Amino acid sequence: MRLPYPLTKLIDELVKLPSIGNKSARRLAFSLLLQPEKSAYDLAEAIIQARKNIRSCQTCFGFSEYEVCEVCKDEKRNREILCVVEDPKNVFTIESSGVFQGMYHVLEGAISPIQGISPDKLRVKELQQRVKAGQFSEIIIATNSTLEGEATAHYLTDLLQELVEKITRIAMGMPIGSDLEFTDINTLERSFEGRTSLNR
Amino acid sequence: MRLPYPLTKLIDELVKLPSIGNKSARRLAFSLLLQPEKSAYDLAEAIIQARKNIRSCQTCFGFSEYEVCEVCKDEKRNREILCVVEDPKNVFTIESSGVFQGMYHVLEGAISPIQGISPDKLRVKELQQRVKAGQFSEIIIATNSTLEGEATAHYLTDLLQELVEKITRIAMGMPIGSDLEFTDINTLERSFEGRTSLNR
Repeated sequence: MRLPYPLTKLIDELVKLPSIGNKSARRLAFSLLLQPEKSAYDLAEAIIQARKNIRSCQTCFGFSEYEVCEVCKDEKRNREILCVVEDPKNVFTIESSGVFQGMYHVLEGAISPIQGISPDKLRVKELQQRVKAGQFSEIIIATNSTLEGEATAHYLTDLLQELVEKITRIAMGMPIGSDLEFTDINTLERSFEGRTSLNR
Repeated sequence: MRLPYPLTKLIDELVKLPSIGNKSARRLAFSLLLQPEKSAYDLAEAIIQARKNIRSCQTCFGFSEYEVCEVCKDEKRNREILCVVEDPKNVFTIESSGVFQGMYHVLEGAISPIQGISPDKLRVKELQQRVKAGQFSEIIIATNSTLEGEATAHYLTDLLQELVEKITRIAMGMPIGSDLEFTDINTLERSFEGRTSLNR
């Protein structure tokens, strides 16, 4: 006996989601059929509404319900510092930490020759225009600490260094609370390179 | 900056799914916004279609696209053996193993006084009627090997033993490929109790 078609189809769609394997997709699909009908329809509706009502901010390309996002509209933020990130979700991660009060620019990815992602497929031109037009005193490059993120950081530094006084990269090193024993070589190397003085 | 409302709502709906925590829900929600729009709508549509087109089989209460499911309609199956399971997904699990060629009855749960699930909230009356009306020579009780599943097995045995000659319970013991060292006491106890002869 095969699974009924609508169930197979649902599993097929669920398995496309990140880190949802075959087993998880199956479990989720059955759960969507077993829970009260309303819950399933609410989820479907939430997906549709999210896609309909969330767009990219015209200025920073972060997610927003409006043409310009809350951060870009907020007059109280420091408009002299620009933090460049790869992904819209990075904005919310940084925001929830509260460590940064400036503006954002979302690249919508990172440079990856292997995946065919060149700078013109990212929001690099828009970044260049913002930096040219804006009064930024510092650009913080907060791309991921991956090969692609690092390559992007170097590319952007070359591109923007004539336009702004200070370009910085967020620190790489051992995550807080981690054990040196289990730190990989690359991280350890960066931790030693980036060591800071304890002398007073 | 707070997450846009439609995104918060989507995360709220995703987090209701089993084994989807806050972090996973967030990752899934962002992924649903970042992937091509069609994929997100396809998933929403698959959920809606699955809920609309999959119902409980009138006979066995397994999932079906039709009033009577494929197994119940199949004339080639052994109509003398009835396998009782808790959940519609159990039918597909057993079917995909190919170990059983008889009929099914889905209880839609297990007896659980703590959760307020009494036999009248399950498909027990329907099971009793089927057994009374049918020509079953054996009923295999394949409820889970949990407290609730065991309690249900005992309850059903008391209820049905006058109506059918043979009532059996699927075997409990060490799963194949497992190490005795890591087998819990309850499983080990059942493994010893249920030991079978190797003599020829």
